[in-house]
Amino acid sequence: MPRYRLTVEYDGSAFQGWQAQDGAPTVQGTIEAAAARLNGGVRAVLHAAGRTDAGVHATGQVAHFDLEKDYSALAVRDALNFHMKPMPVAITEVSIAPPEFHARFQAIGRHYRYRILARRPPPAYTVGRVWHVTRALDIEAMRAGAAVLLGTHDFTSFRATECQAKSPVKTLDRLEVFAAGEEIHVEASARSFLHHQVRIMVGTLRLAGEGKWTPADIIAALDARKRAAAGPTAPAEGLTLTGVDYPAG
Amino acid sequence: MPRYRLTVEYDGSAFQGWQAQDGAPTVQGTIEAAAARLNGGVRAVLHAAGRTDAGVHATGQVAHFDLEKDYSALAVRDALNFHMKPMPVAITEVSIAPPEFHARFQAIGRHYRYRILARRPPPAYTVGRVWHVTRALDIEAMRAGAAVLLGTHDFTSFRATECQAKSPVKTLDRLEVFAAGEEIHVEASARSFLHHQVRIMVGTLRLAGEGKWTPADIIAALDARKRAAAGPTAPAEGLTLTGVDYPAG
Repeated sequence: MPRYRLTVEYDGSAFQGWQAQDGAPTVQGTIEAAAARLNGGVRAVLHAAGRTDAGVHATGQVAHFDLEKDYSALAVRDALNFHMKPMPVAITEVSIAPPEFHARFQAIGRHYRYRILARRPPPAYTVGRVWHVTRALDIEAMRAGAAVLLGTHDFTSFRATECQAKSPVKTLDRLEVFAAGEEIHVEASARSFLHHQVRIMVGTLRLAGEGKWTPADIIAALDARKRAAAGPTAPAEGLTLTGVDYPAG
Repeated sequence: MPRYRLTVEYDGSAFQGWQAQDGAPTVQGTIEAAAARLNGGVRAVLHAAGRTDAGVHATGQVAHFDLEKDYSALAVRDALNFHMKPMPVAITEVSIAPPEFHARFQAIGRHYRYRILARRPPPAYTVGRVWHVTRALDIEAMRAGAAVLLGTHDFTSFRATECQAKSPVKTLDRLEVFAAGEEIHVEASARSFLHHQVRIMVGTLRLAGEGKWTPADIIAALDARKRAAAGPTAPAEGLTLTGVDYPAG
């Protein structure tokens, strides 16, 4: 029963999220259907570092599964990609992992990028990959707002009400805001995130960028420890899971 | 009859090219249908700097048209964008142009970007925006090939057989090849290009990048002055018209 570690890229707009469910295309379901063809028709259960929501993209999702038979890593990569055509999901890397490797429980860092297009005309070339905000945003004000979110906090105000994490306390290691061509990118890194945490942080930073919220308002939102105290949830289509870290060796 | 100059962005995959034709969605037809609503139902004929082929994208196409009534530039921009929803085309800028301005005949520079994803797994996040080449390419070899195409040449071997330009002699001002993240970008600039010229140059540079063609082979292709002597035409989906230059003032 060799264990395979996969790096996965997908266009989230084509899927009802990561997690397998009946009657809707999901990333997990699509990969598992391809994997079953390498596994004598038996389901090979896929475990992902981050079970992304409907519409969220990935360029560096990590997942693992076990197969009954020994295949080379490259054979698994190419066979999965072949069987998943024409769905917009690609296995970009495969390696054979030790039997104790777990994509979700052993992840020590997760990295997300959020893309914003702040202009009055709608996106056309980047449609489906950016959040369209119709007013210019002040990047410096967004940076000042991001600075107060860094570090260890009770992020209750920044998680979905249906979030099932045991603790709302998380450590945010990085939250950068920068211009990227015509877009504004927000990049976030942490060991793990609460449900919708990145999207609620971005929705709140937008208020800072519009001049409506000061850093003190964001501190007050943290202190309130209730979802309604923070900004709205930014839409899924701007968000991409770009990478996951594991301990060396 | 004020004249308006437009900058246009579009996702070429949604259109059968720029030029209006019956029964197929085109960029020109989509914008003209919106413009007619500002013009008492009368067609306002749109003239573009480059009549891009089916599947080719734009972030900086330029076009002009005349309207019967005086509107502000911003009113024209916003009304066109409103009436074109949900098609993936956006008017990103509008200005009022002098009556002698002509988007096609006065253009003195056109700029294209071609995006290549050279890896065995298919594109997923960038699907429809890149040419998927399944082998690694040698960027230095592509640069050496590009260098011999620079300058003024008879580009007969690098134009579509149906190209209707009077002369095959063109001056290529810029042809840069560089890594852009995981992609390879080829950027080309000239006063004007022959039909399919950028795509045939890219298809030929791919042969250089695979080690199959030397710069001497590309010189021989130019000298042969027949289409079959150059490489294949790279697909439309990797190509974007990024900008058009006009004389100052």
